[in-house]
Parts: sequence; structure tokens; C-alpha cells
Amino acid sequence: MSGFTEIIQKDLDQLEASIDELMSTRVTYIKEIVTYIIKSGGKRVRPVLVMLCSKLCGYRGKKHIPYAAIIEFIHTATLLHDDVVDNAKTRRGLSTVNTVWGNEPSVLVGDFLYSRSFELMSRDGNNEIQKTISQVTTALSEGEILEIVKTADTETTENDYYEIIGNKTAVLFGAACEIGAILGNKSNNERKALKNFGYNLGIAFQLMDDVLDYTSYNDVLGKRVGTDLNEGKVTLPLIYVLENTGDKYKAYIEKVVTKRRITKRDFERVRNIIEKTGGIAYTLAATEDHLDKAKKYLDIFPSSRYKTALLELADYMLKREM
Amino acid sequence: MSGFTEIIQKDLDQLEASIDELMSTRVTYIKEIVTYIIKSGGKRVRPVLVMLCSKLCGYRGKKHIPYAAIIEFIHTATLLHDDVVDNAKTRRGLSTVNTVWGNEPSVLVGDFLYSRSFELMSRDGNNEIQKTISQVTTALSEGEILEIVKTADTETTENDYYEIIGNKTAVLFGAACEIGAILGNKSNNERKALKNFGYNLGIAFQLMDDVLDYTSYNDVLGKRVGTDLNEGKVTLPLIYVLENTGDKYKAYIEKVVTKRRITKRDFERVRNIIEKTGGIAYTLAATEDHLDKAKKYLDIFPSSRYKTALLELADYMLKREM
Repeated sequence: MSGFTEIIQKDLDQLEASIDELMSTRVTYIKEIVTYIIKSGGKRVRPVLVMLCSKLCGYRGKKHIPYAAIIEFIHTATLLHDDVVDNAKTRRGLSTVNTVWGNEPSVLVGDFLYSRSFELMSRDGNNEIQKTISQVTTALSEGEILEIVKTADTETTENDYYEIIGNKTAVLFGAACEIGAILGNKSNNERKALKNFGYNLGIAFQLMDDVLDYTSYNDVLGKRVGTDLNEGKVTLPLIYVLENTGDKYKAYIEKVVTKRRITKRDFERVRNIIEKTGGIAYTLAATEDHLDKAKKYLDIFPSSRYKTALLELADYMLKREM
Repeated sequence: MSGFTEIIQKDLDQLEASIDELMSTRVTYIKEIVTYIIKSGGKRVRPVLVMLCSKLCGYRGKKHIPYAAIIEFIHTATLLHDDVVDNAKTRRGLSTVNTVWGNEPSVLVGDFLYSRSFELMSRDGNNEIQKTISQVTTALSEGEILEIVKTADTETTENDYYEIIGNKTAVLFGAACEIGAILGNKSNNERKALKNFGYNLGIAFQLMDDVLDYTSYNDVLGKRVGTDLNEGKVTLPLIYVLENTGDKYKAYIEKVVTKRRITKRDFERVRNIIEKTGGIAYTLAATEDHLDKAKKYLDIFPSSRYKTALLELADYMLKREM
């Protein structure tokens, strides 16, 4: 990603070996599919968080590597299931697993990754981590379902939106950071602080994702711009317009989000409305707010190069183009 | 199911209350879907096994009830995902969740049930049970994927078949029984015996299912007869024909299993071939063998009404019509 991963580069290299080892199965078909998606250029943001937070908390063992792999497995499982749910065609510039192999393997290989994650955790037997992660995976599914319920709903409020992204994205960031505190045997206070750091970072990450879905380009984002609008996802940039322009655009936006397939012209028109009325600026400001909030949670930790790296990682969120 | 559940009727009543309580979520949509499928007349075979085996092992606590609910949750999650994978229209005589609500909720509510199960287990913190169940859920996904790989493959061997049904069905029966031994603090010897009892019972259960898919009727089975053939599943009755009649029917069977939708005539013709050549009789004999094997594993347990009930449950497998 950037400079802040240099201090854990050796661990990140080991992570790739660990991923290969831990996904092992006698079913070669599973291995093929997992390799395809997990080696397709994911940014490993969540594993980086596990590692930096573990080191921030003085952890000197080796377990942060398999736990980082587990967090990436869970993330990958959600991607596989998301792509079935959204009927997505591309991810990170590559065809999705459901496009190449069909929905069936996407569902089942996702299940394999979830189960393997719990298998690995129960083998290690750290009950605190198990509790944390299993609560989070429940929340992930709840968040995804809330999102479906709110699909194409122009009455979606900011509160609804934050509840959705909190559950579908931020809780996993929170757990990734919390694992560091658990491994480092830190007090409840530090554990909560890292959880909140991760949660707010995750919110910012998703806000930025939702901005980029209107402003980025295909070749940078590795997915088509306008995906959210096409899938009827009413995200903050659009909610801002709906909540702040009376009924001016409501009927039109309603027409677009309920369409099965939007046109390029629809997308450009909605994007122009969002930009003109301040929906992008508003969402970027919300991103910054959450990053500031996240960073403040690190105040209780003494200075260290790991703290610096985490702060840099937070700043990177706003700069990222993918 | 039958007389052998009478001695645990109170526990079975409590199971229903426990299921309601443990599936609780603030997302009403999830509750609606889970209720629909989990209250649709499942036979609760796996929960009955958890309960009878716990009592056989002298367990006197209350935890067998939530664990029975967890096992039913996991089973239900696999049903939800299976129905997406198989694009099934009906189950237990009702429309499937994917038919009523679509694939998206089926995938995500399945994820919710898996995750909630692990959440409940990690709350209780019995590491032995967690290890057992998480290994089993990994195997379940492997079994399902192996089944996909072998779809419409007329070269599927008996070994392939047993590997598939062992993973997709029997391991969960094994785990249900093993939980009883773990809760009852029994030695490794008894734990293994109950695991093997359940495993062989599960194999017999699936063999019978695969027979019934050729011989049962819609209104009894609660699903259309011929489902396996229509989905290209090459099960033991068909494998027997393919392995024992040279090339006589191979080309024809290959044509049928690769069809997108088979006709009634196709089904009846294949069923006649299977019956005539002894494929049904062979599979029924295999069912009996596995039941005998299962029952022998109970030899090490002293006589009790719970043992009697488990033996009766095994005998019921061969008699069941649904």
C-alpha cells in the first residue's frame, strides 16, 4: 500500500505463505478458486491492521500472522458471497468467481473459508478472539441483509446507512485491531480503544469506497464506476441529495435506483446532481471526521513507529484511489 | 418421528423455545426467513441425536438443548445454501427460501446461522465442541463442492460417492453424537464410538434419501421425486448400474444427467433401469450394512432406555418414507 507497511514487510511476506498453508484442502477445485480470489491483488488492509496493532501492543510472538490470514479469509468469504448477492461481474479488474465458475462454488468456497477460519481459531483456542470474531461475522451478515432490505429505498436515512456500513465493513476492521490488543495482553481500556480506532477507520474506508464509486475510474478502482447506483445501493452521497434538496430530484433518483440496469447517461446525470448539490463534499467531510475520531483513539498509546504507521494508514484512507 | 423421541419430549419442546431465543436478531427480515425454514417441519433428527447421546453418556445438565439448536442451525444453513446451489424450488413441500425471497437472502441468512452458531459456541467456551463442529462445517463445504465437481460425471465411483456423502451428511451426524460424549465427559473410547455410530447412521440416512429420490412420491417426501437425476447427481443407485452393466446404458444415462431439465419419461426410464438391474436393492443393502455397523458401535454402552431409543432410531432409518 504505502510506506507504513515497510516496518512489517517481513511479516507480510510470511502472511502469503501462511495463507497458502492454512487454505490447504484435498479438494483441488477449492484451492484453485481460493487462490484465484485471494491472490488477485487485495490490499491486505485488514491483515496490516492485525499486525501493526499487535506490534503496537508489544506482542512478540508469531500468532498475529495466522490471525491476519484468518481475517483475510473471512473478508474473502464475504467478497465471494457479496458477488453472488450483487451478481457482480468484475472485482479488482478481474472477472468474479461467480462469473468464471458460477454461483455454486462462490457460495460453497465462501463457506469453506468461513469454516476453515473457525477451525483454525478453535485449534488455537483463544476464546477471547473467537468471541470477537464470531460476533463480527454475525454482524457482517446482518449488515449485508440490512443493505438488501434498503436496496432502492430512497427513504434510507443517514442512520440506516451508518448502521449498514458499521455492520458490513467497520466491525471487521474493529476486530482486526482488537486482535492485536488481545494478543498483546492489553487491558480492556486499550482493547476498546483499538476496537474503536478500527471501527472508525472502517467507516471511513467504506465512505471513501462509496465516494470512489461515483468519482473514480474503472482502471484505477478495478471495478466499474457506478456499481452502487446500478445495484440500487443508496449510499451517503445520494442520501445527502435526497435529504437536502426536497423533492427536486427524488422522483428521478427513485426511477434510476429501481432500474435493473442503468445507462451511462443516468449515471452521469446522478453524479452531476450529487457533485452539484454537495453530496461528494459532504461524504468526504464525513470521511475526515471519522478518521480524526479514529486517530484520537490512539492517543492513549505511547509513541512508537507502529503508532506512526497506524496514523499514516489512517491518512492514506483519504488519499487512496482504489 | 416415532416412539424413541418420547423419552426426550420435554427436551424437544424446550428445543423449540431455545431455537426461537438463540436466533434472535434486531433484523426482522432475518427472523422472518429463519422462522420460515426452521419451522417448516424438519424432523430434528440431529438434535434428537445430540439429546439421546448426551443422556446415554449420563449428562444431566441443560447445555444439550442449546447445542442441539446449534446443530439444527448449522444444518439449516446448509439447506439454505444447498437450495441456492441446486436452484431448488421446493423443500418439505414448501417453496424454498430462494424461490420466495431470492438467492441473496438465502446466502446471507445461511451465513447468519453459521456465524450465530459459532458465536453461541464461543460464548459457552467448550473448546472440544468448537473444534469438533468447525472441522465438520469445513468438511460439509468440501463435500458439497466435491458433489458439484462430480455433477453429471458418469465416471463417479462408489468411493467418490462415499467421500461426498461422508462429508456432506455423515460428519454432522457424527458430530451431533460426539457432542453427547463431550458433554457427558466420557473417555476418548466412548467419544469415538458415538462419533462412528453417528457417522454410519448419517451414511445410511443419505443412502436412504438417495433411494427415496427414485422410489418415493412427491407428497410423502415433500420434494419432487427425481430431483437428483434432474440435478445431474450421480448417486449410488445409478453408480451401481453404470459399474455393473458395461456400456449398455452409459450413453443414455450420460445424456440424461447432462440435460438441463429431464422429462418425466427420462426419469421413469432411468428408474426402471435402476430397479431392473438391482441398483435399488444394492443401495438398500448398503443402507442396512451401515446401520448394522452403526449399531455395533453402541455395544460398549450399558443397556439403558437411551441406548434402546438410539437403536430404534437406527432401525427407523430404513423404514422412513421421508
